[in-house]
Amino acid sequence: MAPPEITITFEPLGRRSRARRGTTLLAAARQTGVGLRAVCGGSGTCGTCRVRVLEGSVSSPTPAEQEALSDGFRLACQTQALSDVRVDVPPRSVSAPQRAQIESREAAVEIEPTIQAFEVALSPPGGDDLRADASRLCDTLNQHHGLNIERVTPEALRHLPMRLRDESWHVSAIVRQGEVIAVNPVGTTPLGLAVDIGTTKLAVYLVDLDSGETLAASGTMNPQIAYGEDVMTRIAYTMRDEGTATELQAALIAHLNEVTQTLCDEVERDRREIVEAVLVGNTCMHHLALGLPVHTLGVAPYAPVLTDNCDRPARDLGLELAPSAYVHALPNIAGFVGADHVAMLLATDLHQTQGVALALDIGTNTEISLAVGNRLYSCSCASGPAFEGAHIHDGMRAAPGAIERVWLEDMGHDPAAGSNPGSKLDYETIEDAAPVGFCGSGILDAVAVLRRIGVVQANGTLRANGHPRVRGTGRATKYVVVSEGERGAPRDLVVTRSDINEIQLAKAAIRAGVEVLLKEAGIDMEVIEKVIIAGAFGTYLNVASARAIGMFPPLPRERFIQVGNAAGGGAKMALLSHRKREQAAEIAECVTYVELTGDQRFVPLYTEALIFPAI
Amino acid sequence: MAPPEITITFEPLGRRSRARRGTTLLAAARQTGVGLRAVCGGSGTCGTCRVRVLEGSVSSPTPAEQEALSDGFRLACQTQALSDVRVDVPPRSVSAPQRAQIESREAAVEIEPTIQAFEVALSPPGGDDLRADASRLCDTLNQHHGLNIERVTPEALRHLPMRLRDESWHVSAIVRQGEVIAVNPVGTTPLGLAVDIGTTKLAVYLVDLDSGETLAASGTMNPQIAYGEDVMTRIAYTMRDEGTATELQAALIAHLNEVTQTLCDEVERDRREIVEAVLVGNTCMHHLALGLPVHTLGVAPYAPVLTDNCDRPARDLGLELAPSAYVHALPNIAGFVGADHVAMLLATDLHQTQGVALALDIGTNTEISLAVGNRLYSCSCASGPAFEGAHIHDGMRAAPGAIERVWLEDMGHDPAAGSNPGSKLDYETIEDAAPVGFCGSGILDAVAVLRRIGVVQANGTLRANGHPRVRGTGRATKYVVVSEGERGAPRDLVVTRSDINEIQLAKAAIRAGVEVLLKEAGIDMEVIEKVIIAGAFGTYLNVASARAIGMFPPLPRERFIQVGNAAGGGAKMALLSHRKREQAAEIAECVTYVELTGDQRFVPLYTEALIFPAI
Repeated sequence: MAPPEITITFEPLGRRSRARRGTTLLAAARQTGVGLRAVCGGSGTCGTCRVRVLEGSVSSPTPAEQEALSDGFRLACQTQALSDVRVDVPPRSVSAPQRAQIESREAAVEIEPTIQAFEVALSPPGGDDLRADASRLCDTLNQHHGLNIERVTPEALRHLPMRLRDESWHVSAIVRQGEVIAVNPVGTTPLGLAVDIGTTKLAVYLVDLDSGETLAASGTMNPQIAYGEDVMTRIAYTMRDEGTATELQAALIAHLNEVTQTLCDEVERDRREIVEAVLVGNTCMHHLALGLPVHTLGVAPYAPVLTDNCDRPARDLGLELAPSAYVHALPNIAGFVGADHVAMLLATDLHQTQGVALALDIGTNTEISLAVGNRLYSCSCASGPAFEGAHIHDGMRAAPGAIERVWLEDMGHDPAAGSNPGSKLDYETIEDAAPVGFCGSGILDAVAVLRRIGVVQANGTLRANGHPRVRGTGRATKYVVVSEGERGAPRDLVVTRSDINEIQLAKAAIRAGVEVLLKEAGIDMEVIEKVIIAGAFGTYLNVASARAIGMFPPLPRERFIQVGNAAGGGAKMALLSHRKREQAAEIAECVTYVELTGDQRFVPLYTEALIFPAI
Repeated sequence: MAPPEITITFEPLGRRSRARRGTTLLAAARQTGVGLRAVCGGSGTCGTCRVRVLEGSVSSPTPAEQEALSDGFRLACQTQALSDVRVDVPPRSVSAPQRAQIESREAAVEIEPTIQAFEVALSPPGGDDLRADASRLCDTLNQHHGLNIERVTPEALRHLPMRLRDESWHVSAIVRQGEVIAVNPVGTTPLGLAVDIGTTKLAVYLVDLDSGETLAASGTMNPQIAYGEDVMTRIAYTMRDEGTATELQAALIAHLNEVTQTLCDEVERDRREIVEAVLVGNTCMHHLALGLPVHTLGVAPYAPVLTDNCDRPARDLGLELAPSAYVHALPNIAGFVGADHVAMLLATDLHQTQGVALALDIGTNTEISLAVGNRLYSCSCASGPAFEGAHIHDGMRAAPGAIERVWLEDMGHDPAAGSNPGSKLDYETIEDAAPVGFCGSGILDAVAVLRRIGVVQANGTLRANGHPRVRGTGRATKYVVVSEGERGAPRDLVVTRSDINEIQLAKAAIRAGVEVLLKEAGIDMEVIEKVIIAGAFGTYLNVASARAIGMFPPLPRERFIQVGNAAGGGAKMALLSHRKREQAAEIAECVTYVELTGDQRFVPLYTEALIFPAI
């Protein structure tokens, strides 16, 4: 009798593999396109395929493993799954990291630093001059540089006497808001860190605060995914008992410390040179990062604890930067329009736009802002995790092997172009790897194409319509985009009726959000001069597909601009310029926030938007 | 053969006991006047005589001990000393605590609080009003109470949503410097803590910030004594390796947390209601408490790291008070004139004295200030630990059994009164216990009396002069004040030639310090209208004795005022009044500090002051 089939789930990628009981975790990972490193080819000798078993039953550690590992890690190549198993793949074990959009179009920002370094030579104590080290430093800085400094932070004080004497009283003082926060050897420039915490992805930038240059950047998965893919699940997790919120914060901070160390290693700098960080994220990520309770975000009226910007000592959050480093968190607008959206508005200058512009940051929640002259209207809609590949039959995140583009072989990439009912679909995968599933942009394209060729009806049902790749009937109807074996596909990759419905729900929510804002502002859709699409999914999506299925308003293609991770760009701006921080506060202050829950305009518009536009 | 004699030292009292090998620690403690608790009379059943063996060899734990104890504690009644042993006696094991002066004459202080509680009722979120909890609270406080609050501290934020909802949006907001630092149920008054950290003793006061009332007070030993009796030994200890400074800080903070808990228990309050603390201490104690390096205080020119006052989050120091509580440390003047002296000047109003006044705080270091009109001159002199009972043959700290007063039987307490060469000395002990040694005031009296009756010569040598109680010759001469067995004395208690010399060094340093300040100010001794004597030793000493041996200037007795622990009083004032904090800063700022090391005036004055005045 053949062993039964079990499911192996790889976190944080979220990829699932069906395999025979006894399959090694490495084999299962390979089968589903998880790019697990295995330098020795799976012989248990290199130790690169370290994973952690989160749930389920696996084989006992082999002697090779016992020798190589500690801390509960296992070698994926040696470990057999004996039941349904959930496995955590740490970043260092992944050969091809998850694609995360970390680049953005950035407006030039004038550096108006919150942090400055001043070189200063002190006279040593002696004779009648017996001032304390701290007074000596402040007095001399004030005299030589015309400053008005009154205080050296406790952390800087702790190293001050040694540093002054080691450096023969000639040092570089790092000054922040009238305080000396660090005293360094002459010749080092202070570093900053910009952090954008998404529910799924984390973008981190290491920035030279003197030149404004981004020295290194990193896009990784938010490790809190292990506690729930979406915000609501994580909020529920924090309410289990007293320690659980701290657990989520700790997971994030530990990961941030690891990423920071990696970035610093890349450019051979010391993370203790990082004297300032700026943090953005949606309101829930913001609250979790700062250790604020999130349970009020889980129930109407979704009141946040804090919307104002704030400065927190990095060490209070557990971040291992310079001992006196501060974290500046940009302001939130509401429970579901967070600091990341403020950063995006800052980066795209939306608050200073002439005319009418729309900005969307599409994710599990989609934040939408409409700028009309100098007025701003914002809302958030629950667009669900379909665009992250979740709740989609063959969905996956944007990792190697994910189908990210689908088009009609004879028609090119624009689904709005004419089509031949017999046309074959073509596709491309991330890194041209063997296809293993659809990421968000791939499923969006597929739905648009299937609508184009008449397989998807206006109401979302599937009809064979003469297409040989349609299988099943009724709610079980599906379209086979890739057949097992094709370009190495491990199995059929299909779009199901249920997948179409997931996309319908998502796109309707987004479109209805846009329509409510237009009504709130009292303007017509046609006057929108510019539609800014931000975020990772927003960067890779095919605007034509999104327009074709009615997710975006039917405006000319040239009015759409994809700006990449503008939230990260905004965080960097706020890192380099106190004026930008002030602007961010002004943005958060002046926005007219529209809560869609309970808004009487929303439901009819949503219902209407569920229908696919005519072909 | 009788077992050999060994020495058992009881910390932090510093009492030594000579005993036969195999003696129990409890027996040794009793013999030397350490008031170890032993509710069961030493049968090993009550567990009250818990001690910790720091050094040396002792018997193995008995079954009774194994049952009763953990954490390395031993029962003194069950533990036999098998070699020289050093033992730590925790505060809770002491029945009669060390006498520490915690009361002081306090000037009335107008309460000008740094912390205020405001009752406020908020409207809950809903409808169009979706403000964050923090904004809602600040807005309402500002509206209802005319405040200008912009921020809720992170620690207060953490509890804010729950507290607001639990209390139905009607709460008491604790406000400090424009920040909400706690949100409490309506009806509780905020508490404050005043802490005076001496090298030897610690005074802690629990104060109602609303009424200004001292609810409870405590005088205990500084646990850092285990790391060295004086400041220099502790500084040396911190330089051993990186962790040792932290160790000293941790010992202090753990003790402070324990004391605070005890004070709160006494008045049935919660230490999380303590929202502010004020800390004073000599510069080294101040630096150690704040985690600042002290090694520069160990070498000339004794530059402190910090003299300005500072505010530190209590949790950063490890103090377990309200989560957002701050510690305000008063300013230091110099490496050896610390915040405790500033507090004393504040409490005695010396900086606002009309005319000329002198203030002394006598300890291992004696801080001296001279006020001339509104000018202040200060210095510090190394008076040594003789007045703490150290380096004195039968010296001990001011614990039960310590001889604290010595006088001539027929002449009363004033050694300046006439005397009969055949007079017998009389004495009294603390708590009338059997005499076991001399504390500072006792040895001071004894020296003055022996000088009076002609046993002590002007140069400090001892001469029998017909006194039957003088034993030995030359440097080994000593005077037997108490004979073994007298009133239960365990052995002869004597004053040696070497003891006289220790007192000479101490009193000469103090007197020379006073003389240098007079010269610095350009005034004569006679114009001093008031001599303020502060500190525990200063409270108990006999002014007549101190004058007789030349430690104090020969001014009329009525010009001397003993004010008790004025440093603690000053700390309490600063706790209750921000105006007093500003005054403390002004005092520290305006003082003319005179460094005696290297001052050419000092050595000749010191040499002169070594000689005892004519009888």
